[in-house]
Amino acid sequence: MKILLTNDDGIYADGLRAVCAELARIGEVYVVAPDREMSATGHGITIHKPLRVEEITSFPNAQKAWAVDGTPSDCVKLAVECLLNEDRPDIVLSGINRGPNLGTDVLYSGTVSAAIEGVILGVPSVAVSLTAFENPYYDFAAIFSRIIVTRVLKEGLPPDTLLNINVPSLPHQDIAGIEVTRLGVRRYRNVFDKRMDPRGKTYYWLAGEVVETDDEPDTDSMAIKNNMISITPIHFDLTRLDMMDMIRDWEIKL
Amino acid sequence: MKILLTNDDGIYADGLRAVCAELARIGEVYVVAPDREMSATGHGITIHKPLRVEEITSFPNAQKAWAVDGTPSDCVKLAVECLLNEDRPDIVLSGINRGPNLGTDVLYSGTVSAAIEGVILGVPSVAVSLTAFENPYYDFAAIFSRIIVTRVLKEGLPPDTLLNINVPSLPHQDIAGIEVTRLGVRRYRNVFDKRMDPRGKTYYWLAGEVVETDDEPDTDSMAIKNNMISITPIHFDLTRLDMMDMIRDWEIKL
Repeated sequence: MKILLTNDDGIYADGLRAVCAELARIGEVYVVAPDREMSATGHGITIHKPLRVEEITSFPNAQKAWAVDGTPSDCVKLAVECLLNEDRPDIVLSGINRGPNLGTDVLYSGTVSAAIEGVILGVPSVAVSLTAFENPYYDFAAIFSRIIVTRVLKEGLPPDTLLNINVPSLPHQDIAGIEVTRLGVRRYRNVFDKRMDPRGKTYYWLAGEVVETDDEPDTDSMAIKNNMISITPIHFDLTRLDMMDMIRDWEIKL
Repeated sequence: MKILLTNDDGIYADGLRAVCAELARIGEVYVVAPDREMSATGHGITIHKPLRVEEITSFPNAQKAWAVDGTPSDCVKLAVECLLNEDRPDIVLSGINRGPNLGTDVLYSGTVSAAIEGVILGVPSVAVSLTAFENPYYDFAAIFSRIIVTRVLKEGLPPDTLLNINVPSLPHQDIAGIEVTRLGVRRYRNVFDKRMDPRGKTYYWLAGEVVETDDEPDTDSMAIKNNMISITPIHFDLTRLDMMDMIRDWEIKL
């Protein structure tokens, strides 16, 4: 089994190494990851500059590893189309991300967009995030990544569907279970911090705290609050089919 | 009526100016746009560096205009949260983009992501793209933008829904009509061009031609092929609700 591993925290991130070690127990792991942190790049692809690729010869537990000066989506595209040319991966795992990818924020997530790219290219894909920034505990999330990869390969996923998984930063015995969830709505308060630079010019830092407005029990955020692993099946078709007739009824004239 | 206008081709793009002139006929237009071209940035937001904002005093037909050294999503966030502080916009229009935003490509689109950002912030939003890169003819797309903005404000849109509109680069008399569509699936062939730099090092350019695999009559691409305006209602909830039970049936054990 060939596993393509990527992330958006960059090729030197601890979460990537932790999951690589676990996945190497069940298959051949190929790592293609950004050469630096790319958080919140969203589903960006690089079209205005060339991409450089450097092979990393000493990546522990990987068959091969490459660092790319692009986004996570670039990495998956480049891996499947060029770097693993003869060896199409059986699955893409993106992660383990340092920090959650929940609800509306998924739209901004490089971690999730890499998995979406995998699905667009026809490879079953999974995104895994750890829901803590401080003192991240990757051990159990790495074990769970191995469990879910094994399961996805056994069960299969429908076309155009991937799994977005968030795992609490806790040891096995403190995990309360697994919940299959939908993406909740997340909004932010106090979003920009306006500051003055030493020369008196204004600049803005994006900041703000999360306001969970969607605390229904079936959301991903609620699962995490309850120390559960959250698994959300997602797709990439943004069409709102149920609205098409309503717009047709407008009968716009030119 | 206050209209927030943005794009991802940058504040000096012709499409932005063309639509600004039309929208100024029905409301006060505030322009907050990237200071340079940001195509294919996807739904990126800038969190690792501060954002600079420069007021542009001479923008034709706008009440006020600002250039931001960030992504289209940054522009909308910054406009609504800071720059238009007292004056919440009644609608966000993102465009007119030079080039189509159809099907799966919408995920990579800065134009669409700016409109999604508007909807996340609770403002009705519309993305407008012209389906030609060469010799773009913006006049009719600008007129249609005015028509659709007027209509959206009259009819309203359901929460969390926006319109993704593609307009052929044609004069009024050659437009065959309006179609309400779903996003089609677009895939690419020959995706990377591998080259050698003058010092013998390899680099990759993202290239490739579109392969339309989804030529059903109700897709956005088919509407454009038929010289129709395509209107697709989209949302930002990627949850695949119909798959949740299937994953639950896996009964994963820890």
